[in-house]
Amino acid sequence: MPSADRVRFAVVGVEHPHAANLASGLLAAGAECAGFHNRAGESDGAVARAFAAAFPQVTEVDDPRRLLDDPSISLIVTADVPDRRAAVAVAALHSGKDVLAAKPGCVSLDELAAIRQAVADTGRFWWVCFSERLHVRSVVRASQVVAEGRIGRVVQTIGLGPHRLSAPTRPEWFFDQARGGGILTDLASHQVDQFLHFTGSTQAEVVASTVANHANPGRPRFADFGELLLRGDAGHGYARVDWYTPDGLPTWGDGRLTVLGTDGYLEIRKYVDVAGVPGGDHLFVVDGAQTERVDCTDVELPFYPDLVRDITDRTERAMTQSHSFLATELAIRADLLATRAGHLA
Amino acid sequence: MPSADRVRFAVVGVEHPHAANLASGLLAAGAECAGFHNRAGESDGAVARAFAAAFPQVTEVDDPRRLLDDPSISLIVTADVPDRRAAVAVAALHSGKDVLAAKPGCVSLDELAAIRQAVADTGRFWWVCFSERLHVRSVVRASQVVAEGRIGRVVQTIGLGPHRLSAPTRPEWFFDQARGGGILTDLASHQVDQFLHFTGSTQAEVVASTVANHANPGRPRFADFGELLLRGDAGHGYARVDWYTPDGLPTWGDGRLTVLGTDGYLEIRKYVDVAGVPGGDHLFVVDGAQTERVDCTDVELPFYPDLVRDITDRTERAMTQSHSFLATELAIRADLLATRAGHLA
Repeated sequence: MPSADRVRFAVVGVEHPHAANLASGLLAAGAECAGFHNRAGESDGAVARAFAAAFPQVTEVDDPRRLLDDPSISLIVTADVPDRRAAVAVAALHSGKDVLAAKPGCVSLDELAAIRQAVADTGRFWWVCFSERLHVRSVVRASQVVAEGRIGRVVQTIGLGPHRLSAPTRPEWFFDQARGGGILTDLASHQVDQFLHFTGSTQAEVVASTVANHANPGRPRFADFGELLLRGDAGHGYARVDWYTPDGLPTWGDGRLTVLGTDGYLEIRKYVDVAGVPGGDHLFVVDGAQTERVDCTDVELPFYPDLVRDITDRTERAMTQSHSFLATELAIRADLLATRAGHLA
Repeated sequence: MPSADRVRFAVVGVEHPHAANLASGLLAAGAECAGFHNRAGESDGAVARAFAAAFPQVTEVDDPRRLLDDPSISLIVTADVPDRRAAVAVAALHSGKDVLAAKPGCVSLDELAAIRQAVADTGRFWWVCFSERLHVRSVVRASQVVAEGRIGRVVQTIGLGPHRLSAPTRPEWFFDQARGGGILTDLASHQVDQFLHFTGSTQAEVVASTVANHANPGRPRFADFGELLLRGDAGHGYARVDWYTPDGLPTWGDGRLTVLGTDGYLEIRKYVDVAGVPGGDHLFVVDGAQTERVDCTDVELPFYPDLVRDITDRTERAMTQSHSFLATELAIRADLLATRAGHLA
């Protein structure tokens, strides 16, 4: 029996392991999972089977309409193949549900326009979970440091998002940017999110961008390197993403963020401090008085609790609607505008 | 008495403390200093007095022609006000001397064209000392790591060149970019040098650049922030420079360089490892097998010994002539092309 005071969600599209991360976050925030659906024939179903095994209490349903038409469900989560996420979102919005998508929320400007229209028509929310900020304690702590004024006014962010390719584990759609999104649409959407968040920009343009294939000549539709230069109404931004993480690194990627302020700066080594202190969440702050390695162990992640409250209160604590739109739009535009280099077709 | 087998140099223009660094490097490499001249009235002469005190064995001469016309002198060093360095260089080249300039080697494309012409006419060398690579043991060691093939083919460099402003210690020309050079011409020439060096690019273009004044509204002709995006024939590059280094940092700037390869990457924290290991020259390498903090204590700096040999042998071991030209040209072009932001006039 659904409890009247708990937010209920369902998952439609379980083609990326991020589905489990989103579900876990919502469950930990007190939401209830009403079921999941994954489209037959989209893949070998391995991700959906792993999801079912991880959440044995969650029922799989054959017809997604059973979830979309269930009035007790407020939120549809999707981690479908990226080029299907917009269709899932639009259907969910028109069914009166809010939507939380794994990133990328969609892979084309046309899809984004359809989502914008559906949000405008329905008054529902469409969020994208930019997990490289929202799931990372050191990044949340960094936001607090900035808010405390310790580094002055933020001038610029530099984000690095290297990833390990692990090619044999990837589904076929991963290597086709029409399905998975370009490298900037996919990986750099996190970076755009962080740029907008830390500079406080609400308008921005892609000044220049590059996508390239330098290490995978056998996969000409796959970009293994991408970069973009951003200029916002409240700061500058640069980001680089790549699929070159070597096996010697003890984690999947050495994600970094540098936030430059007029009176100081901070650096986050999110997942690893290379040849340094073990563990993740390494935050360094330099201000007018000192250099400091900031402990982030006890930082709470507000995203999912805020999101659950936003669903009931119709507020925008977790993320503004316009932020989800702008971050997604800039990442897609960066791919469309990019100069292409190397082995790319 | 000059010894016949030692390279003799003289310094013309002592307006920046880099004059002492260059002279020290040459002396340590076995060259002999034949004298120095500084133009009267250019400044209060404080830098030249400090130079004279640091090198009491070096004679000051009133007329630079005495140095330019001395056939025992092979090399003219200059750290004049940047907008005078080209004139010093051209006069020296036409007097049959090689030239070693502090960076920036000049501040305009017209000046650079005059230097190129003088080099072409005389067959002499014009070098710019990009000290943030050539004086730094960890960067020299990084070059060796790349040459060993540990990170595969270099795809990209990201350079950060933050500096402490220390405004009260700066001469008036420092705040006038027509005299001192723009922030990209000045600070980012180091970054361009490192990009060309590590990617192995011999041709490159400035894709986009920005200069801004975000923290010094009272000095509208001074840029305190700059960035540039570079695309070379052998790799990509991004660099940011700024004058925001806060007092809490125990050194003048947290200079960084990240070199991304197809099979690994390296990071250099040149002058400080924030809230980490004391000292400078922190080199980190990640390759297919491991992460490693590389000891750079015993690395020898080859630049000045190579330069002294190049003068006698007419070789290009220390730096190719075309590299000095290209690094300087790109840095100046980046300033000319830059989008301007903030309080800049």
